[in-house]
Amino acid sequence: MSDRVQLTIEYDGTHYAGWQRQLNGPSIQQEVERALHRLTGERVSITGASRTDAGVHAVGQCAHVDLTGTIPPERLPFALNSLLPRDIRILKGERVGAAFHARFNARGKEYEYRIFNRRQPSALRRHFTAHVPLPLDDAAMARAAATLVGTHDFAAFQASGGTAKTTMRTIHATHLTRQGDELVFTIHGNAFLYNMVRIIAGTLMYVGLHKLPEDAFTQAIETGDRLLLGPTAPPQGLCLNRVFYEAACM
Amino acid sequence: MSDRVQLTIEYDGTHYAGWQRQLNGPSIQQEVERALHRLTGERVSITGASRTDAGVHAVGQCAHVDLTGTIPPERLPFALNSLLPRDIRILKGERVGAAFHARFNARGKEYEYRIFNRRQPSALRRHFTAHVPLPLDDAAMARAAATLVGTHDFAAFQASGGTAKTTMRTIHATHLTRQGDELVFTIHGNAFLYNMVRIIAGTLMYVGLHKLPEDAFTQAIETGDRLLLGPTAPPQGLCLNRVFYEAACM
Repeated sequence: MSDRVQLTIEYDGTHYAGWQRQLNGPSIQQEVERALHRLTGERVSITGASRTDAGVHAVGQCAHVDLTGTIPPERLPFALNSLLPRDIRILKGERVGAAFHARFNARGKEYEYRIFNRRQPSALRRHFTAHVPLPLDDAAMARAAATLVGTHDFAAFQASGGTAKTTMRTIHATHLTRQGDELVFTIHGNAFLYNMVRIIAGTLMYVGLHKLPEDAFTQAIETGDRLLLGPTAPPQGLCLNRVFYEAACM
Repeated sequence: MSDRVQLTIEYDGTHYAGWQRQLNGPSIQQEVERALHRLTGERVSITGASRTDAGVHAVGQCAHVDLTGTIPPERLPFALNSLLPRDIRILKGERVGAAFHARFNARGKEYEYRIFNRRQPSALRRHFTAHVPLPLDDAAMARAAATLVGTHDFAAFQASGGTAKTTMRTIHATHLTRQGDELVFTIHGNAFLYNMVRIIAGTLMYVGLHKLPEDAFTQAIETGDRLLLGPTAPPQGLCLNRVFYEAACM
């Protein structure tokens, strides 16, 4: 008899090959599974809502795992954090129904992409922002970002290697704000294709540099042409903020 | 014939033994001197405005150095940043008078101390904040911080090892603000004793936890008694924001 437990996880992805267990380096999933094994003696597999890439961060990743042990789920953050490296923190643990699935039940996700926009790069923010040395036109970027909202075919917005059956996605909201030298772009959608947020961020950079028109997203949605979009922005600017369920994780 | 040059420097102090050249580990000063040597062939010594401790950060450290080379000072950020580790960035270089001294001419400094105030520690902010898991009384902390403003004898506010001739210091302003889970304390003064800002930050934490009264600073100023203050807060929450001269550095 086991209980399904939902974990909310924050991590600094700098030193990891990504969320998912893989051969070319340590993964967040692996570290959490190892800590669970040390804590409970059980060899378990955890499932995350988002398979973030190498270098990508999360402040609200959600995962589920089945545990037979007797540790109350609300004690798991304290118990696991004492075993985990300091760049991975469990923020919350709670019992959920046996049918709950962190990925398939996710109703939506919010990501954030941060751009450090100053002549010289930042020493302090180097792992958490992408650097753009030339001035960016924030207003043009915000107008372009707004054109993403709605249900569209985002076929042009994915890197090869994606496994999605359909490329229709709904973007609920986008937001762009400047905090000192940092531009913070937030996007909330029902789901995202492989590298979609980083392609959107790279396109926004190009719009901000006037290398692409403000209607670049609309054109790419209409034509399905990846070449109408900007480059895939680097991973370290990206952070998974939150996963939404019937009742929000966090 | 040499020119005196002023450098504005940002650094992530996590992996350094502090600003000043020393035996027990790499220092920021050493790294910048090494980059200058590689760039110009000259063995130079640079002087920083603030000798920040191990783990302490800066976004606006100021330093001066004498160079005989022909590289225009405004090109130094680009040239040095290509040689420096990515956790040290030169933001600005400018020619100054031969009498300019980064430390002795400093009219004031602004430091920032960041507290991450949430039950579980932060993975992303672990190198840039001190963690306080219990709820803090922001209002009491802000009221206590305000009592620091003015010219006082801060004899109680220093760690052993300080070399100051007088312990009179003037605090021009303090500010406390909450950004999500982060409490940001800013302090601007004419000069600071050894570990003074970290002792103030540790005392503010204790006031916020109701372990010390709101007039703890006043009592310690009046009596000179270090025991009336809180612990020295950990280094990673501290950042040197800015150094003020006749014309501000930055």
